[in-house]
Amino acid sequence: MLTANYVGHGQVSTAEVVEAPPAPGFVQIAVAYTGLCGTDLHIVHGNMDARVTTPLVFGHEMSGTIAALGEGVSDWQVGQPVTVMPLVWDGTCPGCLEGHTHICQNLEFIGIDSPGSLQALWNVPANTLVALPEGLRMDHAALVEPVAVAVHDVRRSGLVAGQTAVVVGGGPIGVLIATVARNVGATVTVVELDPTRRAGIEALGFATLDPSAGDLAAAVEDLTGGKGADVVFEVSGAAAAVRSTTALAKVRGTIVIVAIHPTPREIDLQRVFWRELTILGARVYERRDFEGAVALLAAGVIPADTLITKIVPLSGTGEAFEDLAAGRAMKVLVDVAGQK
Amino acid sequence: MLTANYVGHGQVSTAEVVEAPPAPGFVQIAVAYTGLCGTDLHIVHGNMDARVTTPLVFGHEMSGTIAALGEGVSDWQVGQPVTVMPLVWDGTCPGCLEGHTHICQNLEFIGIDSPGSLQALWNVPANTLVALPEGLRMDHAALVEPVAVAVHDVRRSGLVAGQTAVVVGGGPIGVLIATVARNVGATVTVVELDPTRRAGIEALGFATLDPSAGDLAAAVEDLTGGKGADVVFEVSGAAAAVRSTTALAKVRGTIVIVAIHPTPREIDLQRVFWRELTILGARVYERRDFEGAVALLAAGVIPADTLITKIVPLSGTGEAFEDLAAGRAMKVLVDVAGQK
Repeated sequence: MLTANYVGHGQVSTAEVVEAPPAPGFVQIAVAYTGLCGTDLHIVHGNMDARVTTPLVFGHEMSGTIAALGEGVSDWQVGQPVTVMPLVWDGTCPGCLEGHTHICQNLEFIGIDSPGSLQALWNVPANTLVALPEGLRMDHAALVEPVAVAVHDVRRSGLVAGQTAVVVGGGPIGVLIATVARNVGATVTVVELDPTRRAGIEALGFATLDPSAGDLAAAVEDLTGGKGADVVFEVSGAAAAVRSTTALAKVRGTIVIVAIHPTPREIDLQRVFWRELTILGARVYERRDFEGAVALLAAGVIPADTLITKIVPLSGTGEAFEDLAAGRAMKVLVDVAGQK
Repeated sequence: MLTANYVGHGQVSTAEVVEAPPAPGFVQIAVAYTGLCGTDLHIVHGNMDARVTTPLVFGHEMSGTIAALGEGVSDWQVGQPVTVMPLVWDGTCPGCLEGHTHICQNLEFIGIDSPGSLQALWNVPANTLVALPEGLRMDHAALVEPVAVAVHDVRRSGLVAGQTAVVVGGGPIGVLIATVARNVGATVTVVELDPTRRAGIEALGFATLDPSAGDLAAAVEDLTGGKGADVVFEVSGAAAAVRSTTALAKVRGTIVIVAIHPTPREIDLQRVFWRELTILGARVYERRDFEGAVALLAAGVIPADTLITKIVPLSGTGEAFEDLAAGRAMKVLVDVAGQK
């Protein structure tokens, strides 16, 4: 079967490999679609070379059906539609022992630390499977993983109906957070520099703000009657955006750090103190977030067709990353099944 | 009567003024003792000149007895021992309307924005009074306000019995936070650069760490079996200390920002994300924190005699700030009653 691999030095290439049967406790999945994400782009750009072993079959946003069961797996059946929550925890570290297995101190992320879903037949531990409803389209189901990120971020923020959320950064995760926040019943504004992205976000029914157009804090004050936002999601990864967040939040408001910030960022701690703000880190997801994401996609809450910019064959994976890096695409799916 | 005033340009001077009767809704207090704190020192150093009007009778950590009641005050009696929660909120801003009156968006802080307690007869709104038990010594009761800060910080942190707290910065507020945290049932370590302060803190029964002596994060890992601290209190105000906090906290741990940070500080947001940390601002106190502080002082939990380095006459206020600035004193009280 064909696989797409990160081979180092910014290069992606395909390779033929012989498929292996699932080991005991594992399940073999016939992968339908794999979405490409920002973390995959970081891998391709070499930013995670210290962590990954090449060649790496990567990819972790996926949908598929069960093709074979390894020894001892009895809860699942061949043919069932599934996706995978790609986390493997040790269960013994202090973080796990306090119940936070999803951010285990020795977490293995499948598709980064072990082979991912850019291959037609993918073997994963049975306990990573999440069932998909029969009616959910396979291309839409490839969005479950990023939607689960958004569900986790919104849940962790404590946002409730009637509140105001500001999402700073209108990439795919920002748009998904905005969608989940709106579904909770919040009023949502997305802050995005790029005018093309802003237009797309407005077409989805969201208010937007251009941070280069004036005083962002004054704009959010105006929107909220002088109060400030209940929750601010930092999804941009930009230093200037981080500095702006503390000015946008209300007294006792919450700022959720969703983006990756490779270097320390300046934060106005005087404002954090003055307004008794809360800054929360939010990383990956828990099983209930995955199940919530499946439900949102099945209910049609997520504008999946709009978010999926294009679908490429497995051999087009490398080129698709160039589109993503250039900001020419929101979400690109790889049609893995078509390349079997 | 004699008053101690900040008169600008780093100068404190005393002045004779004629006492005024309490206005309707106000109470006149015969002040016993007034403690000098870090905020007062900021005022004396001119850091708050944009906010204060000179000459300012300052001071807000105090004890006393009721000397006279203004018109319409019926809940209090002359002779009752009291302290003052020196906050006046507008009750109409969005922060107040959500119940956070103590950090009202237009908060007036008595002793900064209006006259304080470095005068023998002090008029304050009746609703700022907090009753003191008969048995509590007046010098000890002058510590209620800073103890209430510590009670608020610990309560806001969510710290519970059996957990581990690291207090970064061993000044008066740091020591009070450590004391309140220990009283909650937590294991407490205080991080302090100054060896004299470390010795004093150890004499109070706390473990200490010297941040210049090696890898602080490794030391806290060792103390906690590889887990990290449940709660880290940032009380130092130092940029390097802020950078260290994220490395000290456990998965889903909490960092409380207690100190004033006049300029933005660098924070390792990658670690905040990776461990899903929470950073909380904690400012002043609520009435229940004041009542909690009174109870702790009355029960002898607070090492008041150790913390009160010296007691000076009202005319010695200026000199006392020199001792505080030089780190030669933990807590200095002004004997206001003696200068009547």
